[in-house]
Amino acid sequence: MLHLNQATPAQLREWEEALHNQYQAVAKAGLNLDLTRGKPNGEQLALSDALDGILAGKYIDRDGTDLRNYGGLDGIPEAKELFAPIAGVKPEEVMIGGNSSLTLMYFAAQAALLHGVSDSSSAWQNEGRTIKFLAPVPGYDRHFTVCQHLGIELIPVAMDENGPDMDQVEQLLQADSAIKGMWCVPRFSNPSGIVYSDAVVKRIANLGNIAGDNFRVFWDNAYAVHTLNPDAPMLANIMDYCREAGTADSVLIFGSTSKITFAGAGVAFIAGSVANLEVLKKHFSFSSIGPDKINQLRHVAFLKNQETISEHMAKHAAIMKPRFDAVLNLLKSELGDAGMGTWNEPEGGYFISFDALPGLAKKIVELAAAVGVKLTPAGATFPYGKDPQDCNIRLSPTYPSVEDVKKTAEVFVLCVKLASVRQALEQA
Amino acid sequence: MLHLNQATPAQLREWEEALHNQYQAVAKAGLNLDLTRGKPNGEQLALSDALDGILAGKYIDRDGTDLRNYGGLDGIPEAKELFAPIAGVKPEEVMIGGNSSLTLMYFAAQAALLHGVSDSSSAWQNEGRTIKFLAPVPGYDRHFTVCQHLGIELIPVAMDENGPDMDQVEQLLQADSAIKGMWCVPRFSNPSGIVYSDAVVKRIANLGNIAGDNFRVFWDNAYAVHTLNPDAPMLANIMDYCREAGTADSVLIFGSTSKITFAGAGVAFIAGSVANLEVLKKHFSFSSIGPDKINQLRHVAFLKNQETISEHMAKHAAIMKPRFDAVLNLLKSELGDAGMGTWNEPEGGYFISFDALPGLAKKIVELAAAVGVKLTPAGATFPYGKDPQDCNIRLSPTYPSVEDVKKTAEVFVLCVKLASVRQALEQA
Repeated sequence: MLHLNQATPAQLREWEEALHNQYQAVAKAGLNLDLTRGKPNGEQLALSDALDGILAGKYIDRDGTDLRNYGGLDGIPEAKELFAPIAGVKPEEVMIGGNSSLTLMYFAAQAALLHGVSDSSSAWQNEGRTIKFLAPVPGYDRHFTVCQHLGIELIPVAMDENGPDMDQVEQLLQADSAIKGMWCVPRFSNPSGIVYSDAVVKRIANLGNIAGDNFRVFWDNAYAVHTLNPDAPMLANIMDYCREAGTADSVLIFGSTSKITFAGAGVAFIAGSVANLEVLKKHFSFSSIGPDKINQLRHVAFLKNQETISEHMAKHAAIMKPRFDAVLNLLKSELGDAGMGTWNEPEGGYFISFDALPGLAKKIVELAAAVGVKLTPAGATFPYGKDPQDCNIRLSPTYPSVEDVKKTAEVFVLCVKLASVRQALEQA
Repeated sequence: MLHLNQATPAQLREWEEALHNQYQAVAKAGLNLDLTRGKPNGEQLALSDALDGILAGKYIDRDGTDLRNYGGLDGIPEAKELFAPIAGVKPEEVMIGGNSSLTLMYFAAQAALLHGVSDSSSAWQNEGRTIKFLAPVPGYDRHFTVCQHLGIELIPVAMDENGPDMDQVEQLLQADSAIKGMWCVPRFSNPSGIVYSDAVVKRIANLGNIAGDNFRVFWDNAYAVHTLNPDAPMLANIMDYCREAGTADSVLIFGSTSKITFAGAGVAFIAGSVANLEVLKKHFSFSSIGPDKINQLRHVAFLKNQETISEHMAKHAAIMKPRFDAVLNLLKSELGDAGMGTWNEPEGGYFISFDALPGLAKKIVELAAAVGVKLTPAGATFPYGKDPQDCNIRLSPTYPSVEDVKKTAEVFVLCVKLASVRQALEQA
């Protein structure tokens, strides 16, 4: 394969013409494909079809609580026990919510902002200045929009293959006590697929000793058990490191079964120190008489224990892997030595993160859209939608059929080539 | 029966002694009874046991949406259609939420406060002064605590048998544009059981023309279909009156199936003008990828239509009525002509509201607690827990068995008598 940098202007012109013709042909095909969001596909969802009806009329938890009635603000004991190992904490350090961990994150950030992380004197808004969060990039757009809706400023932080650039993180926190939070997707990061190294996790656990008052890490372990390969890298237990560092109150851990069972009808949880949970429960009590406990019991009955969860996730992996492979194989064969971009080969999670040549991400997404292939908007993985290099594109191959993923990847690769060759031509 | 005011001091002394002996006997019985909260009992909950499993593997709505997946911020079409007649609006004027209408009310109040009822310029907090809500009293403590948590001041408004004192309401709104909201439980009001008269509903619908900018009525129609008698009074359709008055944006209607199906695992909704719902959806999108749509479909499959809902509610009434009758019959026979208090005879809802002689509510609740009978704390039905007359006590007879309700009512009546006779003695 020709490397972009090695092509002569004449070769570039010829290449552009060939690519342009291919692109025109694709345009005529009238595609309607979508690779925008990290949604499980129908086959994955069907793995959990037994959920509805699994209780067979048994609506009582092991403590004898009638789950049909009001109450149980922090969840049923069985569910706490089931999710505690996933969060890496004790059962009493887990609070079970409704169907959305995003809702819990929004709630926790808002409660800290308006009402405080401990008593009311700790409310971030009391400081009378703009509150800031660190946002390792590329990252998850819905984390960013939580902050934007709450009026919290986002400060991008670089990531490498080990996680966030911790030198930068520590410097920023030492310099600015208005930074009250940091978003993390520590295992199979959205979208880069990175698993934070043990050293990074340990340094993050210590941030509570470096940051100003009332700082909280928002540890969104959304893909805690979502491996594509059985030997995918493990994530260190942040709470263990926090206990060593004396910072147990500095981290809030989030998770859900959205990508384990039903994306829209799962069970979400917050884990953290008992002190943190007491505060959250107090504030939660003003807006709820408790989450849906019956759905919690359904999930306990269905997922059972860590071993059966692993078996269940292996079934997800078997469905997802061909989709990831379809994209990764094509990227490798078509762009492996073309000098047109880099990407990760994730061992879990829901995304492939592609870095095009600087200045081309928007162009590539536009080229694809024009021929009926919807990609996540360029910039979506950066705060305020502003990718300073305009290079990152998040690919979400899980939802469409393998056939459609292949077609989409082909169009994507074509658009990457066309945009890259055109840019090279302009610069030649 | 002796009337309190007709008793001589000697009679009072004799009476007190007899009551005191009865009370001592009850104290020895070691009761442990609870009449505190409006919870359905197990028999009522069992009416909906068919919910789990009712879908029989059918997770697709009529539009073909896979309800297991993400999305559907405002609910499934079938659910909108089912709940629209209960709210008295069109299906497109309904937004379905999770399991709690309290959560929706909190969310709506908070969104209005921080982000505005229309665009961001309409945010109540922009006014830079304390925002206020009108609270018809006695009322629902959780409405009050929503406001308290959000820093909204509550202004009590008197109620009579037709609903809130509308002269007072209109005067307050005309005088103070910082009043941005008003709580209403318009049918079988919590706790007084009042059904707002047509004239009152019409005047409430017109408040949008009287109040300052960005005023919203929080119309919590929690007991919309919760009748105890088939011929219970109907509630006028506030949205119809609003359309006539040109105030369709001034009311937010709330409801849920919490006391229709499962109290903790039902489906809640907001209804209102399309303009209002668009604003709420916009803000909701920052904290959710959509409520549990599967539970919505379960409810549609189970409740079916208005006729089957009525039949279902008649079964609830058959279970609840003996509990209400147990209290009401005893109140009538024991206190009917004693001059020791007044109460309502509700035709629906979950409560009996008892007004003791001024200054005695706390004492009565304490007397009951001391012999093992828990009542709703005196004052709970007033903002900040402050009943200026210290007379209102909310009785919630639905949850215990009929036998326990009877026992509790006997203790309650005894405590009312004892407190009243002692007060009369002191004043004699």
